[in-house]
Amino acid sequence: MNIRVPTPDDVAAAADRIRGHVRRTPLIGVPSGTFGVDAPLALKLELLQHSGSFKPRGVFNRALTRDVPPAGLVIASGGNAALALLHVGRRLGHAVEVFVPETAPAVKVAKLHHYGANVHQAGRDFAAAVVASERRAAETGALLMHAYDQPEVVAGQGTVALELERQCPDLDTVLVACGGGGLAGGMAAWFDRRVRVVAVEASGSPTLAAARAAGERVTISVGGVAADALGASRIGAIAWEIAQRAIDEVVVVPGEEILDARQRLWDELRICAEPGAAAPLAALVNGGYVPEANERVAVIVCGGNSDPATLKAAR
Amino acid sequence: MNIRVPTPDDVAAAADRIRGHVRRTPLIGVPSGTFGVDAPLALKLELLQHSGSFKPRGVFNRALTRDVPPAGLVIASGGNAALALLHVGRRLGHAVEVFVPETAPAVKVAKLHHYGANVHQAGRDFAAAVVASERRAAETGALLMHAYDQPEVVAGQGTVALELERQCPDLDTVLVACGGGGLAGGMAAWFDRRVRVVAVEASGSPTLAAARAAGERVTISVGGVAADALGASRIGAIAWEIAQRAIDEVVVVPGEEILDARQRLWDELRICAEPGAAAPLAALVNGGYVPEANERVAVIVCGGNSDPATLKAAR
Repeated sequence: MNIRVPTPDDVAAAADRIRGHVRRTPLIGVPSGTFGVDAPLALKLELLQHSGSFKPRGVFNRALTRDVPPAGLVIASGGNAALALLHVGRRLGHAVEVFVPETAPAVKVAKLHHYGANVHQAGRDFAAAVVASERRAAETGALLMHAYDQPEVVAGQGTVALELERQCPDLDTVLVACGGGGLAGGMAAWFDRRVRVVAVEASGSPTLAAARAAGERVTISVGGVAADALGASRIGAIAWEIAQRAIDEVVVVPGEEILDARQRLWDELRICAEPGAAAPLAALVNGGYVPEANERVAVIVCGGNSDPATLKAAR
Repeated sequence: MNIRVPTPDDVAAAADRIRGHVRRTPLIGVPSGTFGVDAPLALKLELLQHSGSFKPRGVFNRALTRDVPPAGLVIASGGNAALALLHVGRRLGHAVEVFVPETAPAVKVAKLHHYGANVHQAGRDFAAAVVASERRAAETGALLMHAYDQPEVVAGQGTVALELERQCPDLDTVLVACGGGGLAGGMAAWFDRRVRVVAVEASGSPTLAAARAAGERVTISVGGVAADALGASRIGAIAWEIAQRAIDEVVVVPGEEILDARQRLWDELRICAEPGAAAPLAALVNGGYVPEANERVAVIVCGGNSDPATLKAAR
């Protein structure tokens, strides 16, 4: 299979294309010792992005690159990519259709319905929903969107890295959550080894770790606390191409440590992240990734689409 | 009474003094149309500050200005000032004692106990708790702290304005919540009419509006959704002095509109503010303050110490 992998120029072009459509999300710096981590951290608050995750960056980039037919945009997603698609559809005036696997979390499905999405239940997992979305696109002529495995989508997600580098020019290392790999791959494509990229996976869906172990993309069974956001069953083909040369390290963290890190974000910073978005911090808290002295480390907090009632107000 | 009012130099000195102890909190910009407001807004995310509100700025400034006796620091507060005092006590190694009125919200009292505070219930309102704290300071020799009405405290809160102006040099107007007036007064002291300061009060505790109407500070009865944070029964003497020359406008917003604005912060930005911290946005949403075309407006989101379970995940 001939994979077209986004270049740094593609990411820069995406940033120009989507400017004015996405928010430049801020950083908050915390000194060494915070969260028990022996390094100062810069947290990029990408959960403040439109629709509550980084996903609109990639969706806008693809929708603004391609001619969108009257049938609009169709996607398979149980969560953030669907919310992003709805946002983009409203902003750009395109019809959207969403194929949701049965595993999609109630909060996200409720939002999809709330926003008036044309939502179809389609099979028990993401792969089945993708098949249904492809069939639908063939029927209607809609532009098929993929949650993480299209070049324009990956390039769009890479704009998180471009933006971060401008905010934080001396960066050594960035920790980023990895599910299908759209965000981690896009960021690695931009940094192209200038900055160390550490992909952090939930133990319930370690797609990149499994691919590294096997030497090729493999399909795994998926579960765990972050499955709603990181629950791809296979690393994307594009992310895998990028990862082999530009993702330096993969850390897998258990679900309970992800939930603990999520609660810590609340306790320390009043940030209400979704579980998957707390995975990078969990890797730092549990020692899965240990920074050197003076290493300048950024952490992407990539989404906030979970029920805040699942946080403890005080503990 | 001879009131010592902080000058801009006092605020600048406070900023130097507390640097390294407080977080430089970030801004997120949103374009015109967001929240239904016809102006672009810069939201300063001061809820990301240590202990979940702006209060440590003032507490650090007073604790670092004065000699702190072995008996430590004592304060009357039902909430954010007490949480801030605990944080400052831990960081600087001072004993702390807190006098809490019975109206203090459960979430904040639970946190105080969790952090091991020496907490005393002291009367049915904030004024009674202040009397108890004064008596205690006289007994033990502890340094008496006031939640909003001491020059070092007001100067410390003013560093929010200094920081904001550096982040956003072209600012025309800032909207800030007002209870006792420590934050609004401190910010107005720094800006000194260079930037329009709009103080926003909850209808349950309009201390500054009442003082303006009466031409002097008056004691009002207090209640409503934001009473935990904005529930002073009288504007501070220092804030009143500053307000008469440097606070341009006072807007009073009803409780239900504050709760609506709080929910909007969540829906649009995944920010979990406490009710009082949503009052400035409420003033913009409900037309209590209407920006001119091209007016550059900042909104301070000054605290996040409420129970996230009171937000609707999706609505």
